[in-house]
Amino acid sequence: MAKNKKIKIIPLGGLNEIGKNLTAFEFDKDIIVLDCGIAFPDEEMLGVDLVIPDISYLIKNKDKVKAVVLTHGHEDHIGSLPYFLKEINVPVYGTRLTLGLVELKLKEHNLLSETTLNKVYPGDKVKIGQTVVEFIRTNHSIADSVAIAFHTPLGIILHTGDFKIDTTPVTGDMIDLARFGELGNKGITLLMSESTNAERPGFTMSESTVGHSFNDIFKQNPTKRIIIATFASNIHRVQQILDAADKYGRKVAVSGRSMENVVKVATELGYLNIPNKVLVDLDSLSKYNKEHTVIITTGSQGEPMSALHRMAFSDHKKVEIKEEDVVVISANPIPGNEKLVFRVINELFRKGAKVIYESLAEVHVSGHACQEELKLILGITKPKYFMPVHGEYRHLMHHSQLAQDVGIPKENIFISQIGKVLELSDSGAKFNGSVPSGRVFVDGLGVGDVGNIVIRDRKHLSQDGLIVIVLTLDPAKNEVVAGPDIISRGFVYVRESEDLMEQVKEISKQAISDCLIGGTVDWSTLKNEIKNSVTNYLLHETNRRPMILPVIMEI
Amino acid sequence: MAKNKKIKIIPLGGLNEIGKNLTAFEFDKDIIVLDCGIAFPDEEMLGVDLVIPDISYLIKNKDKVKAVVLTHGHEDHIGSLPYFLKEINVPVYGTRLTLGLVELKLKEHNLLSETTLNKVYPGDKVKIGQTVVEFIRTNHSIADSVAIAFHTPLGIILHTGDFKIDTTPVTGDMIDLARFGELGNKGITLLMSESTNAERPGFTMSESTVGHSFNDIFKQNPTKRIIIATFASNIHRVQQILDAADKYGRKVAVSGRSMENVVKVATELGYLNIPNKVLVDLDSLSKYNKEHTVIITTGSQGEPMSALHRMAFSDHKKVEIKEEDVVVISANPIPGNEKLVFRVINELFRKGAKVIYESLAEVHVSGHACQEELKLILGITKPKYFMPVHGEYRHLMHHSQLAQDVGIPKENIFISQIGKVLELSDSGAKFNGSVPSGRVFVDGLGVGDVGNIVIRDRKHLSQDGLIVIVLTLDPAKNEVVAGPDIISRGFVYVRESEDLMEQVKEISKQAISDCLIGGTVDWSTLKNEIKNSVTNYLLHETNRRPMILPVIMEI
Repeated sequence: MAKNKKIKIIPLGGLNEIGKNLTAFEFDKDIIVLDCGIAFPDEEMLGVDLVIPDISYLIKNKDKVKAVVLTHGHEDHIGSLPYFLKEINVPVYGTRLTLGLVELKLKEHNLLSETTLNKVYPGDKVKIGQTVVEFIRTNHSIADSVAIAFHTPLGIILHTGDFKIDTTPVTGDMIDLARFGELGNKGITLLMSESTNAERPGFTMSESTVGHSFNDIFKQNPTKRIIIATFASNIHRVQQILDAADKYGRKVAVSGRSMENVVKVATELGYLNIPNKVLVDLDSLSKYNKEHTVIITTGSQGEPMSALHRMAFSDHKKVEIKEEDVVVISANPIPGNEKLVFRVINELFRKGAKVIYESLAEVHVSGHACQEELKLILGITKPKYFMPVHGEYRHLMHHSQLAQDVGIPKENIFISQIGKVLELSDSGAKFNGSVPSGRVFVDGLGVGDVGNIVIRDRKHLSQDGLIVIVLTLDPAKNEVVAGPDIISRGFVYVRESEDLMEQVKEISKQAISDCLIGGTVDWSTLKNEIKNSVTNYLLHETNRRPMILPVIMEI
Repeated sequence: MAKNKKIKIIPLGGLNEIGKNLTAFEFDKDIIVLDCGIAFPDEEMLGVDLVIPDISYLIKNKDKVKAVVLTHGHEDHIGSLPYFLKEINVPVYGTRLTLGLVELKLKEHNLLSETTLNKVYPGDKVKIGQTVVEFIRTNHSIADSVAIAFHTPLGIILHTGDFKIDTTPVTGDMIDLARFGELGNKGITLLMSESTNAERPGFTMSESTVGHSFNDIFKQNPTKRIIIATFASNIHRVQQILDAADKYGRKVAVSGRSMENVVKVATELGYLNIPNKVLVDLDSLSKYNKEHTVIITTGSQGEPMSALHRMAFSDHKKVEIKEEDVVVISANPIPGNEKLVFRVINELFRKGAKVIYESLAEVHVSGHACQEELKLILGITKPKYFMPVHGEYRHLMHHSQLAQDVGIPKENIFISQIGKVLELSDSGAKFNGSVPSGRVFVDGLGVGDVGNIVIRDRKHLSQDGLIVIVLTLDPAKNEVVAGPDIISRGFVYVRESEDLMEQVKEISKQAISDCLIGGTVDWSTLKNEIKNSVTNYLLHETNRRPMILPVIMEI
């Protein structure tokens, strides 16, 4: 062990949340960033499109940042790259499919030409700054996923990325457990392992079990068109649909922009093997009898703009759902999406389709390791220190318990949070201070211009609407020359509430004349008086609190 | 069968939705209303507190309405009563606990003195108008639940209410399957049966299995305080907690207004048996050592104002969560509430508590019948016609399939929707027309004054906020004497967007002067010009569409 060496591990996203994964590893003079993801907004973040991590600490230490290394191509691991690279333009390392998806993203943001993308293969070791970075094959719901090991003067730091152990993967190889074991025997100082399924006992089923279910569905529905919704990025799932279609003599078309993009990239890069020209244009599909066709589509989460949603609600230009359709939702609803998914399912049933979803059939498996797999990784890597990552607090807690079960002492387990710095040195590991961290909202073209006050106002407006009270004063005479006029939106149906609005006007007038008679010409006092009188009146009459916005003009 | 007799079954809520159950049975000159519930607002119904059924058809036929008969005391079956009785004041029939809960509700609305409440017991037959109405014991997650049979000239109509078959109920008796069978042998013309769990195979576990889990938890945590969150109305669950507490020598206190109310009513009516003075005030609980105490609380759905939520977020006046606590969430999240529930669980873990929830232990069972129970009821009642009720479309479809599985011909199964009239006559059953139906929003004290336009405006405001543009004109001179002033809320953080707001002002000025020079003094044209110019500018600059509200005043 090297004397006086220090390594800082600084998570800036992905802890106490699912999403916006980003961790900075600070080795002496270098910083390497692992993953660069987005989160999707909570229902409370009104009007927000995306959430990205606060990277102000990295911007401040821009000169030290040497690279971004990626574990896989999911949005919560690569989605923030365009925003990151605009601030810190460093080389990006990833496997071929991951970079294929990154390229799509950078093209959209016109950043492709100015970015250096470095392809790596599982098994590769790359020297970045002073650190050797090793990429190790894993299994996950997207192809070409890797774990990443940093070989440092203080020993090996191993980050699993998102993973499961799939002994019968659809294509490619099984997770490189042997290498995990080798590194374990060499001595792993710190293991960072994902916690998504840390609450689930057992072992996640193999992706290939879904293929068996698809085969059954194809076999049992020889007279029907088959429509399958799944995640665009799940290449293995798409492959299994193509294979089943080929076996049963059907042509396949793809619907939904992200699905089309991913299938194109994956085909070009050789991650999809298209048997016997089974894949055709959605337009050409109409040439075939329904029972000889399959459509793969986006919308497995019930997203209102997705292809499946549009099909269900008769809003899709090319596909109409009919009684001769079988629709398979090959995904589980992400918490929060249940109602959206069920809305689509209800509508598909109403159109007469047969709908196969959730527990009714084994049409989906998770991409994340369950408890037995997590313990296996802990056992084979035998880390000195352990930090559970990628999960809400409950997941991190359960993962910590699993680590204790396999014999890691509690004091060697670090449940961290974003911004909190874990420092490794020759005297061991300890938390040491924190750096700025948090979430930055992306709304339209704006990055960071929507903050807590704006969200609070949107929330207020969304609950009870607003009332604008406008008047014009002649300050010379201290007298009202126009108004007060009352305008409301989102409060009541005005045509049926004329009396109420008339009362608001009277109360405003009274408040104004009280102030003016009292000699008050201080606008903010006048505004407050109007606001308070009207708020109190409406609270009493309606038990609602619309936003009251008094506007005073001067001629 | 009586000639020329007609019976209309008119669901006004509860079909294609979970909630606001209300069905009108129109027998010749009488209408009897079965249940009168609320629904909780979807996330899209911004600011709405409750949703109640549109009963305009019943108001129009007020003279015919003879009574409301209730199956049980859950909100989605009794919650609309105050709004209903204000319009149509008729006697209400229900079992003792159901009416006890109705009384609480009517007191809050100052309606108790003017309402006639008629107590019935399971097994009772009551003549209402020309119809004999029979109440039949069932099992459900609230005590004193009943199915209701109408004995009509066209045969028996049986409505199950919400039910499960519990062969080992905690208190009271098992569902009166014998009577279901007797009526089946007599001949049931129409069965209406609930569909909540029609997708779930098997048989719902008995409520008493939860008691065994409670015993295990009490046994395994002898040094800790135990806090259990469950639905206030689940008296049997509360009873089992009291029994376990008594067995293990603990005192129990209750937290949360609805829980306190229900426990009080249930105790007074004898539905709760409190052993050995085990129940104490929350204030007195501090006299006992932690390991000798239990708290039963509301908040099992993560509701932000509930007692458990306040405990988790250190906002409860009397209870602070510590490391020596075990918190049991004895409920499953209702779809849509998952994120709220997990937020509370994460916070409880963070406070150091042990949290037991969901699949981690058998601390909850459903109150609704699964597929084997539904088929059993269909088999024992042998109805001529069948209408699945109480469910989304997917539930109704699955229930219809179960009915076909037990031999009911497809053409005798009626999947209906609210407002759709099913007519029984001596020539059989058929759909015949429809009546007005829908949802009415309750917001604060307002009933029905928030409609689609108001909700649309709230939605718009919640997404991108608003910009108010005010100016005062002198119409005589056709000239601006004050403004334009720009006020925004919920759009951007104004202090950091001064340039943008300045540009909005300039663009407004330009639009105004273009109009005035062009000779336009038509206000609505002027407003539109301002609105369009600013909207286009902001769309281009920010890719957002705040609500633009131009206000023009005249001196």
